Parts: sequence; C-alpha cells; structure tokens
Amino acid sequence: MAHLSGRVASMQASPIRKLTPLSDAAEKRGTKVYHLNIGQPDIPTPQNYWQAIRESEPRVLAYGPSQGLAVLRKAISGYYERAGIKVPEDRVMITTGGSEAVYFAFMAACSHGDEVVCFEPFYTNYNGFASMAGITLVPVTSSVENGFHLPSREAIEAVITPRTKAILICSPNNPTGTVLGSEEIGILSDIVRKYDLFLLSDEVYRDFVFDGGKHVSVLEFPGIADRVIVMDSISKRFSSCGARLGNLICLNTDVMGGILKLGQARLCPPTMAQYGAAWIYEHLGASYYHDVALTYQRRRDLLMQELEGVPGVFFLRPEGAFYATIRVPVDSADGFAAWLLNDFSVDGATVMVSPAAGFYATPGMGEDEIRLAYVINDDDMRKALGILKQGLREYPGMVAGH
Amino acid sequence: MAHLSGRVASMQASPIRKLTPLSDAAEKRGTKVYHLNIGQPDIPTPQNYWQAIRESEPRVLAYGPSQGLAVLRKAISGYYERAGIKVPEDRVMITTGGSEAVYFAFMAACSHGDEVVCFEPFYTNYNGFASMAGITLVPVTSSVENGFHLPSREAIEAVITPRTKAILICSPNNPTGTVLGSEEIGILSDIVRKYDLFLLSDEVYRDFVFDGGKHVSVLEFPGIADRVIVMDSISKRFSSCGARLGNLICLNTDVMGGILKLGQARLCPPTMAQYGAAWIYEHLGASYYHDVALTYQRRRDLLMQELEGVPGVFFLRPEGAFYATIRVPVDSADGFAAWLLNDFSVDGATVMVSPAAGFYATPGMGEDEIRLAYVINDDDMRKALGILKQGLREYPGMVAGH
Repeated sequence: MAHLSGRVASMQASPIRKLTPLSDAAEKRGTKVYHLNIGQPDIPTPQNYWQAIRESEPRVLAYGPSQGLAVLRKAISGYYERAGIKVPEDRVMITTGGSEAVYFAFMAACSHGDEVVCFEPFYTNYNGFASMAGITLVPVTSSVENGFHLPSREAIEAVITPRTKAILICSPNNPTGTVLGSEEIGILSDIVRKYDLFLLSDEVYRDFVFDGGKHVSVLEFPGIADRVIVMDSISKRFSSCGARLGNLICLNTDVMGGILKLGQARLCPPTMAQYGAAWIYEHLGASYYHDVALTYQRRRDLLMQELEGVPGVFFLRPEGAFYATIRVPVDSADGFAAWLLNDFSVDGATVMVSPAAGFYATPGMGEDEIRLAYVINDDDMRKALGILKQGLREYPGMVAGH
Repeated sequence: MAHLSGRVASMQASPIRKLTPLSDAAEKRGTKVYHLNIGQPDIPTPQNYWQAIRESEPRVLAYGPSQGLAVLRKAISGYYERAGIKVPEDRVMITTGGSEAVYFAFMAACSHGDEVVCFEPFYTNYNGFASMAGITLVPVTSSVENGFHLPSREAIEAVITPRTKAILICSPNNPTGTVLGSEEIGILSDIVRKYDLFLLSDEVYRDFVFDGGKHVSVLEFPGIADRVIVMDSISKRFSSCGARLGNLICLNTDVMGGILKLGQARLCPPTMAQYGAAWIYEHLGASYYHDVALTYQRRRDLLMQELEGVPGVFFLRPEGAFYATIRVPVDSADGFAAWLLNDFSVDGATVMVSPAAGFYATPGMGEDEIRLAYVINDDDMRKALGILKQGLREYPGMVAGH
C-alpha cells in the first residue's frame, strides 16, 4: 500500500470543519442551526455580476493570461485610485481566490524552511498554505484585553530569527474584527526595514471598517513599497466566495516577475468570473460599499448590545470585517461548541460557533474564546445571540469568576 | 530591497511563452500568425454549459464543498461507469483545473526533496508544480524513433532511488500524441509494486484516441488500485480551459483524506463552472466524444499527409491527443521557431511552433524537435503546414543528411 507523504499526513485538518458532522446531525434531528461559525456572507452577489458574464460568453471558453484579464487588472487599479492609492495595473496579478494570493506570497517571500511572523489568533488557512510552502508560522500572541491590537515592538522583534523572511498581517482581521491603525503599521514598517523582511498584508476586508474609520493599507507607506505584498479577494467584498477570484499587489517588479512564474505554472485564474468582477469594480459606486459596511456595522452593534455585560463574557468593540472573537466563561470552547450542537436547543433551534483554539498556533491558547461571524440577517442574529446567551447560562462546564 | 525567494528565482519561466513577444511583434507588423504552438482547443464549448450555469445562478455565490459539488462528482462517476470503470463518487475530488490535480498529486505522493520519475519529453508545467512542491522530476528519455513509447523496464528501474516516490505518465501524451498500451502500463504496474511507488497518471486527453483505439486507464489495473492517482480536466475534453475545472481520482482512502486537507486549505474550486460541467458530463452522448476525436484525427491525418516524406522530417503517426513532436532538420529548433516569427512569411503569414527543448529535462535534448498542436481548422492547418514546409526549405540553419 502506497503511503501519503509525511508533510500532508501531518497537516492540520480544518478546525472549522470539525464540528460540521455535529451540525449535520442536529439539522437531521430537525433542530434549526444558526450559523455564526462561518465567514460566508449572506449579502446578495450584485446582480450585474451575472449579467456581465452572460454578455461575455465566448464561443470557446479559453485560457486567459496568467496574470489575469487586462480589463480586471485595470478595474482594480481604478478601485485603488478612488481610494487615493496608486497601483499601476501591471502590479496587479489576478489569483484564484485570495487563497492563491496567500500561497503565492508565501512562496515568493520564503524558501523551504523559512519563517513568517504572524499574530495569533489568525485565519486558520494560513496554516494550510504554510504547510504546502514548507514554511513555519511563528506566532506572536495578541490579546482580547486590548482588542487584539498589535503586541509591543519588543515582543515582535523577539521572535525574529535569521530564517524570518516576512511579517504577515490581516486588517480588518479575521477572526477578531480588529483594524490596525497607521501607528501600528508604522511600527511594522520600521521592523521590516530593520530586519530586511517582507510585509504580507491580507486586506480582503478593507471595505468593512466601522464607525466612520478608514482602512489603512500597507500600500500607503512609500518607505516599504518594495517590501509589501497585498493579498486581496472579491469573496467578501462582493459576496462572491464561489467565484474563486482574488488578487495580489506587489510594487517590486522583481518579486512580481517571480510571482508571474508561479502563475504561469497554473496557467490562469477562472476566465468568466473575471468579466463579472471587472464590471462590478468599474460600476458599483461608493454607496454600494457604504451600504454593505453599514449592514455589518449594524450587526456588530447588535452583537455588542446582546453580549456586553453578560457575566464572564469579555471583548472590545470590533472595528471591522464581520467577526468578533470573545472570551466566554467556559472550561473548553471546543466542548461548549459541541454541547450547543449536541445537547442544547431553545424552541427547536441552536447556534453554531467557532472555538477559537483553531485560530491559535500556540497550544492551549484560545480555549476560553469563540469566534462569531455576523453574516446572517438581523432577526436571525437576535435569535442566535439569545440562544447563545441562554447556552452560556445552562452549559454544565461554566467557569465562575472568570 | 526585499528579495524574491531562491526557489521562485530559480524556477523555469514558461518556455512556451518565451516566443510570445516575437509573435506579438509579427502580428503588430501585420503578419498573420498561425498558432500551432499552444494547446488551446478551437472546438466550441458545448452551448449547454452556459445554459446550465445560467439556470443555477444563486442569490449568493457561495463557497462550495472543498471536494467539489456532489452533482459533479456523481456525474464524473457516471462518465467512468459508461467507460466500464468503477469510480465511486467519494473517490473523485474536484480541482481548480488539471493543474491543481497535478500539484495535489505531487504533494500527496512526495515530501520535500523526494523524486518522481517521468518520461521526457513531458508537459512543461509539471516543472512548475515540481518546483512548488520542492521535488525533483527525474527524466527517462523516450525517443521519436519508436514514437515516444515507453523506454525499457531496465532504463526505468535504473533511475529509481530511495527518494523515488512515484512514476508520472501522461497518455494520450502532451507533447507527443503517444498512447500507452496495456502492456506498457502493465510494466509500470509491476515496477510501482516492486518499488512501493505511486503511479500518477495524467489522463486529460483520454477521449482523444485515434484509429478506433481505446484509452487504457491506470484505473483498469486492480493490482495497483491503492497506488494510482489520476489527474483529469474538462479543459480539453469540453474545450473549456478557462473554466479551471479538473479532478483527481484516488481509490486509496487514506491518500484521498490527505488530498482533502489540501483542498480545504484553498476552500473550494469555482462553483458555477461545476454546474456547467455536471450538465455536460450528464447529458452529452457518445456522439459528442466521437465527433471531437474524429475532428482531431482528421487533422492528425492532414499533418501526416503534409509532413511525411519531407526531407529530414521524422515522426511516427500520433495515436491521440492533438499534438505531434517531430524531428526537423535544423541546427536549433529555438532558432528556427524565432526565425519563423521574425524573418519569414509567405503571403503575409507565418506559423508559430513550440521548440521541443522546453519539454525535456535533460539539457541538450530536443534541440532538433518541435511540437505541433493541431487545434486550428482544417483550412488553416493546410496553410500553416504549407508555410512550415516552405520554412524548412528556406531556413538558413538547415542541417543536411539528418
């Protein structure tokens, strides 16, 4: 019998999906499950996305350019121009989802065995791409106490080794909703120059910043223009996760040339979705972005309203994206999440949450935290949060005085 | 200035694309360029592909399952059933193009530093994925003299080392058009059992076998069922390269479990294209496959008719796919291909071919060979081959007595 390679055998299975069988079983029993566990937006995909694709139907569905269709790269350049950021279209590479952008960025910044500093909790799929790329993610822990903002400069510098090639950030953040400010990115900018590193920046939630705040991109720091690789996606921005379209921005032409070689190996990103995405980028006005951000902000407010003041629950106001990672007074968030699905319901309904341990690289961290994604409508949000609060009263593994 | 990783810096740039600037320049000068250089089918994508997608338009374009939509996996299982091959749908994983199937197969079979035996000339993009996976492709040379059929058992066994984890084949073959017979696959089956290896089989051209022949799949060898990974794609089969949809088949559940972890990292393949592909797999009858194969066979016949007997040209009758790799009497196929684009035309038209050296891993091999892809209509084929023949008479770097 032939054996699976060691590197894939040792890869972490998706922690988010571990609970899926329990959720399936609950639904099979007739229990309504409110999904606060997954980052799948519920906002409709703009209808013109479909229209634009229909109008582009070719006779032969051919390969496109490896770097993506010119029309989409130009549209993305225009999107940044409207945000006051200059990104020439030949510094934009279209990728197969933000996922591929992450993988290409890791590959371009690191050789096998190199290290990337990141801030835990972090998006779990970084682990998968780190495994594939044969690199190590070195975590610096951020804390719910200060709203998961950057740890100190010293804490960051302490983990840098000769094998460190990059620092990875995500703002607005999945799984915390934290938005990094200019000062924080300024500190990172100093560090990457000091240690000759790349700054890899996942900005897929950049349009979802609340309370009138403005997203700060690493592209706004000219002193590190040759060191930044931005990873982006239309999945969340335009509620089109299934399109598998993202992009990568890199102003360093040498690095971009290398990334293009990676792109040539896989030939091209999906062709038709690019026509749809180009139309959206070109035509949707500021009001679209504003309305979507307000929708998520309203749900964030609902979350605050329902959960602030619940005994033992602690978190600071999330500043963007559509997530919150909150401390809950339980012995084990894994056990709590499983109990909600297996053993608990209110009027035939329950709620599915993500235990936060899966978002940490350090063993033992996050065992009293859960991530909530607010991608269901307001009514359902209210019901789901009500069930969650009741669960927090009835769960047998509650920890007092937390 | 931050530097590109060593592994990407040392990656081979796509050799097929090296000539593109010359071709662009020729077209800019007003020269018509017949493209015999690229494997982009010209046969129309089945119209119902588009219809099926339109009828599946969802409100929110959501993530699909990491292993692909059940409807498509079932349809592929049915496709194999009609070919007399039993493939349960849970042994089918949908991938983002055949490209991703190749990458996942490499990752699942090999850890960093492992080796895969393959037969040169081979599809160049295997190189890209081997670089990404950090593995070495160890070539055994096949020869135009015997129609690029398998080298001897001894030649294959001679390159196997303790680091060898797999043998990689492609039948019908890109770039040669060679189809491996049962006896050849039987020999490989013996070898992979003897040395405890995987047999990775790229079967994307399996429906294009000529002269009434039948494709032989590695899936038809029960003795190696736990060792085979089949890589497949709809790109060529249904002229839909831009859909970026392929699949991987592996009957070994342990290995398939590992591959699913790779799939979870990238979330899912493109959602909408899967509806289109499922429709095609379910509904297109035997006559579709038959007609497409006959179209390519007719062009293969044209190729034989025009090029057989040309002094210094040598090749055996291609048995499938839509490629031929032929020996030509030139000092350098690279130089010849560039000369055709830069310095030669007949009535304002010229032809673009692929120098074969890019398909070999051994330096110096293939310098007197070119690959022709017959994916243009019969009239254009005739004109293009006429120009090629005239080029072979007028090229200043001709080598006599070859």
